[in-house]
Amino acid sequence: MAPADSPVIGKPLDRQRRIEEDTMLDRFKVPEADRVYVRQEEVRAATEAIFEAVGLSEEDAALATDVLIFNDLRGVETHGVSNMLRIYVDRYRDGSMEPRPEFTITRETETTVVIDGGGGLGLHVAPKAMDLAIAKAARYGMGAACVTNVGHMGGSGYHAMRATGHDMIGLALSASGALSMVPTFGAEPRLGTNPIAWAAPADEMPPFMLDMGTTQIANNKLRLAKRVGAQVEPGWIADIDGTPIMERVDVPEQSYMLPLGGTREQGSHKGYGLGAVVDILGSTLTGMGPGLIALEPGFHLMAYRIDAFVDADKFKSDMDVFLRGLAETPPAPGEERVVYPGLLEAEAEAERLRDGIPYHVEVVEWFRKIGDEMGLRFEFAHA
Amino acid sequence: MAPADSPVIGKPLDRQRRIEEDTMLDRFKVPEADRVYVRQEEVRAATEAIFEAVGLSEEDAALATDVLIFNDLRGVETHGVSNMLRIYVDRYRDGSMEPRPEFTITRETETTVVIDGGGGLGLHVAPKAMDLAIAKAARYGMGAACVTNVGHMGGSGYHAMRATGHDMIGLALSASGALSMVPTFGAEPRLGTNPIAWAAPADEMPPFMLDMGTTQIANNKLRLAKRVGAQVEPGWIADIDGTPIMERVDVPEQSYMLPLGGTREQGSHKGYGLGAVVDILGSTLTGMGPGLIALEPGFHLMAYRIDAFVDADKFKSDMDVFLRGLAETPPAPGEERVVYPGLLEAEAEAERLRDGIPYHVEVVEWFRKIGDEMGLRFEFAHA
Repeated sequence: MAPADSPVIGKPLDRQRRIEEDTMLDRFKVPEADRVYVRQEEVRAATEAIFEAVGLSEEDAALATDVLIFNDLRGVETHGVSNMLRIYVDRYRDGSMEPRPEFTITRETETTVVIDGGGGLGLHVAPKAMDLAIAKAARYGMGAACVTNVGHMGGSGYHAMRATGHDMIGLALSASGALSMVPTFGAEPRLGTNPIAWAAPADEMPPFMLDMGTTQIANNKLRLAKRVGAQVEPGWIADIDGTPIMERVDVPEQSYMLPLGGTREQGSHKGYGLGAVVDILGSTLTGMGPGLIALEPGFHLMAYRIDAFVDADKFKSDMDVFLRGLAETPPAPGEERVVYPGLLEAEAEAERLRDGIPYHVEVVEWFRKIGDEMGLRFEFAHA
Repeated sequence: MAPADSPVIGKPLDRQRRIEEDTMLDRFKVPEADRVYVRQEEVRAATEAIFEAVGLSEEDAALATDVLIFNDLRGVETHGVSNMLRIYVDRYRDGSMEPRPEFTITRETETTVVIDGGGGLGLHVAPKAMDLAIAKAARYGMGAACVTNVGHMGGSGYHAMRATGHDMIGLALSASGALSMVPTFGAEPRLGTNPIAWAAPADEMPPFMLDMGTTQIANNKLRLAKRVGAQVEPGWIADIDGTPIMERVDVPEQSYMLPLGGTREQGSHKGYGLGAVVDILGSTLTGMGPGLIALEPGFHLMAYRIDAFVDADKFKSDMDVFLRGLAETPPAPGEERVVYPGLLEAEAEAERLRDGIPYHVEVVEWFRKIGDEMGLRFEFAHA
């Protein structure tokens, strides 16, 4: 590990961070003084080795790692190695996650498939399920895969994006399997953070990719905020009696999530409704039962073949016009720039492929420690 | 028309209104003193007669009317006869809408169909397109229909709901065809209000039906707010330089829509992203070109056959558990009740089927006037 005063720590802000200054997001970034830049190849190799050490096949270890590195490269720290990998390792070690799961199809039609994930981690089960949806869309125009008996998906964006390389639009969502969101006006949580992602390819422009929780803020963002000592904004969370907290406060010991919108006046009924849609498609439609009872994750993955609707070349060049038009919108007074979902992430990816991924020193330390425990040896040559 | 002091005017608040007191919605309801209650059969017959008088076939007149009355019965005044019918009539009269449109399939696969709506009103073109998606889902598990060259859909909820009677989940969305929403941080509008609806059946409970604009507030709600002299909340709209208006104000002469969430801190990037998804599926994927340029409505309608995933009976009884669980959530302090999308609307429908639909006296007057002009005669025997 680089010492705290090493020149590799505290590099200039990367572009994404510059853009996000004065927005809520900068509070979730690793503080400059605590950063270590690591090349993606190195953290990828280390992560694959860890997954293999806990028992995953080489193929599954590579898939699961690809999800985490995809997120880290794109600036989605909350779903990268720093936040999630140690949790997964704990679950393999305590036997609550199956490293060599069986992948069983329990129902199938021309366009749909339902899969029992055999208790495996969603990070590597979901891409395989998505590939089945893609194959069905290739043949019939649309395809969908539902997955039950499976662990965390690791961010829905990766799985939706998997379709874009096939000239398809991808949809991925996950009923979260843990109750954290209070319905609008409700005093008890009834839904999870229930993320949903759509991805669509363009030609020259980076792909469109919206990946959003249906709560105001994600659970692991809240954890991360606590870790870095950041505050939460008014209307982000509720007291445990369901009352929206309308001041800026430190992260409380206990709280519930508010739906996107925050309060009824600001549209929380829409965020709540979207969360319920995710629950219906990710839990009820999969056969697991309603999310209120089936407190496990459930996935719904879908692919639309673009040329079942319009020539793919026309679609992608029209997407360029659309996305460029969004990105070139003149900014409102005081704002620097307008972006579209997926643009900052693509810029971060280019930057981090070049300069390395900024991790908290403590994450690098964890890699060293877990490597020692596993008889592996990780020495990151910092970027 | 009943005189202003008639006993049919100013009935007790109906249940929906009672529930919505102290929420933003009551400002959009017809003030009690201006209400006239009309039986749905009467306003339905009158509306069908008007559509036939401007040239629609009997079948199309009945379909278009059904959409408007569905909305009025369910308390969605903004998409009922009062707000929209006179606009449609004007368009038929000035020749900008085609009363006898050709309905042409321009691309088709097993699961998908793209339709040229022949310049007809979406109210009757969309249900026919949805029926094609439903037929494809019945055969292959999923089906989607895109529609171009078509007018207003009249609220996406009706079209999504059409699937539920077939034991299917329905999705309906419309790229709006008029730029009103500024992207997060943007100074110029780049998207429409871009509504999206999902509907799913239950067994005993009223169906789930989320029908939401991806802006904080719909254009026609803003019009209606102006008409009834209501104010808008902070974070609902932006100044014409894109700056979110963060005070409670009268409806300004000119303004732009903010995405769901309002400000970046409150999640407007998610509302903006959802609006862009609607634009991609409703404009770009239909072949019309990106919504920035193709300033016309475009529809995307989809049906999922439930038993392609899980037995429909199990799904519907699980939905009962889910929806009942949501509706029985203990309310937060000061709140009366928790509902789910579609519940208040179903309650309003039962009440209005029994007691009549409350219209503004001025709407009843319009029916009389237009009836006289068309040589029809509408006398509503008030409920």
